Amino acid sequence: MNYDALCEQIKRKRSFLCVGLDTDITKIPSFLLKEEDPVFEFNKRIIDATAQYAVAYKPNIAFYEAHGVSGWKSLEKTINYINLIYEEIFVIADAKRGDIGNTSKMYARAFFEQLSCDAITVAPYMGKDSVSPFLEFSNKWVILLALTSNQSASDFQLLETKNDTKLYEDVLKKSLEWGNKNNLMYVVGATKADHLKEIRKLVPDHFLLIPGVGAQGGSLKEVAENGMNENCGLLVNSARSIIYADSSTDFDRMASKKANELQSEMAQLLRNHRIV
Amino acid sequence: MNYDALCEQIKRKRSFLCVGLDTDITKIPSFLLKEEDPVFEFNKRIIDATAQYAVAYKPNIAFYEAHGVSGWKSLEKTINYINLIYEEIFVIADAKRGDIGNTSKMYARAFFEQLSCDAITVAPYMGKDSVSPFLEFSNKWVILLALTSNQSASDFQLLETKNDTKLYEDVLKKSLEWGNKNNLMYVVGATKADHLKEIRKLVPDHFLLIPGVGAQGGSLKEVAENGMNENCGLLVNSARSIIYADSSTDFDRMASKKANELQSEMAQLLRNHRIV
Repeated sequence: MNYDALCEQIKRKRSFLCVGLDTDITKIPSFLLKEEDPVFEFNKRIIDATAQYAVAYKPNIAFYEAHGVSGWKSLEKTINYINLIYEEIFVIADAKRGDIGNTSKMYARAFFEQLSCDAITVAPYMGKDSVSPFLEFSNKWVILLALTSNQSASDFQLLETKNDTKLYEDVLKKSLEWGNKNNLMYVVGATKADHLKEIRKLVPDHFLLIPGVGAQGGSLKEVAENGMNENCGLLVNSARSIIYADSSTDFDRMASKKANELQSEMAQLLRNHRIV
Repeated sequence: MNYDALCEQIKRKRSFLCVGLDTDITKIPSFLLKEEDPVFEFNKRIIDATAQYAVAYKPNIAFYEAHGVSGWKSLEKTINYINLIYEEIFVIADAKRGDIGNTSKMYARAFFEQLSCDAITVAPYMGKDSVSPFLEFSNKWVILLALTSNQSASDFQLLETKNDTKLYEDVLKKSLEWGNKNNLMYVVGATKADHLKEIRKLVPDHFLLIPGVGAQGGSLKEVAENGMNENCGLLVNSARSIIYADSSTDFDRMASKKANELQSEMAQLLRNHRIV
């Protein structure tokens, strides 16, 4: 998917919601456990219930890999289902990969070709040649870790460098030499809303993927105030507060309600910023 | 596997060789393609041919993920085969993972429980809470990226910080608060032999995993001179120069010869340092 198509979807749905598919078999409604593939059945119902309010889904790859071959099957089925039924929706593999060139190329094939995702999250520690192989795929995206939402993000990301910047700012600046707003986004934790303004100065046009709204404590309003640009430029992820909102046989109805609530709030923010 | 068992194996085999299983189906001998699982058949023959000279195997997870479910099956079979037939051998998942706490825990389950690896490579960018979940497993290891062998490692790893150190040194120092020589190793590229001496001062007792000897240009002698400690403290990885040494039906005999050559050189270096 390209930049314009993503922006168009955001305007049409009046939403910049990404639903995180952090599907944990120990947390899904127990009646699903009798299904042949409970994880896929759960995802399918969550997707059907939320697709009208969401512009993106983000399967968290660890939750699938933890179940080996069967987990990978659930993941494949989930992504194929989204691509088949809701082809306008942006699919992000939250995989945090990154390795030397020939290895990153293999990861790119895994997630862009084998799984047909639109985007993958990538860790920057190994530098340009670990990121570039992902950028060579047309209409595919790297979402580079910049400033994450976890507490110990401060261990290194906020480290001051001799450039008189913090490490995550060096990551942003350097990466602008590798890609552009059409193939590169950044992960910025919502718990760091105070940093968002600074980040927007460095990357005014790029999309930012914002985890940490909801269960992790970030505020949507603050994120929009500090991070929204003229095309929205935000994808805000919510996982647990939507997918585990209810554990009855009607869990998907409650997930739909929660997604709708977030979408309504987002529609208002988009109106406030005259984007819709 | 614990520290002492690894040291004991190194002394017994007079080797600190790790064989990288970067198995690419387009590079393996073509006669294997008629097998049901060519990747596993290739790995099995490489393992049987090199196990007497190697103390560790390191499957590069990207090469398996690139084939989705079938790749994950080949990976599982490969690791199960090593654990069954050569249980004394150390198995490293070269996965470069790292995410927020609850997600890292899932990756730990994937590689330590589901796949029964001894160790996993982890990227440090997200800090302590992305690494700690891996350290909670008894007799399992984190191999943290410190200074990698790729050219653009310099983009961030060599960045000078206001602590008057380079970023990779901050990573080493900080991580010493999280783990110890019994559950934490470091990736240090052999192409950076000049940095090895400095690294040894910071982490005198820890094992270092050294990729980049052979195809990537590093020298084994230089690595030993600068990085060996009183228990060896090194695992040197070689992949392409062993596993793709030959493409005939006798490819495994040539792999064995190449592994033996490296092991002989290692035995001499271990004798020079009075470790054996």
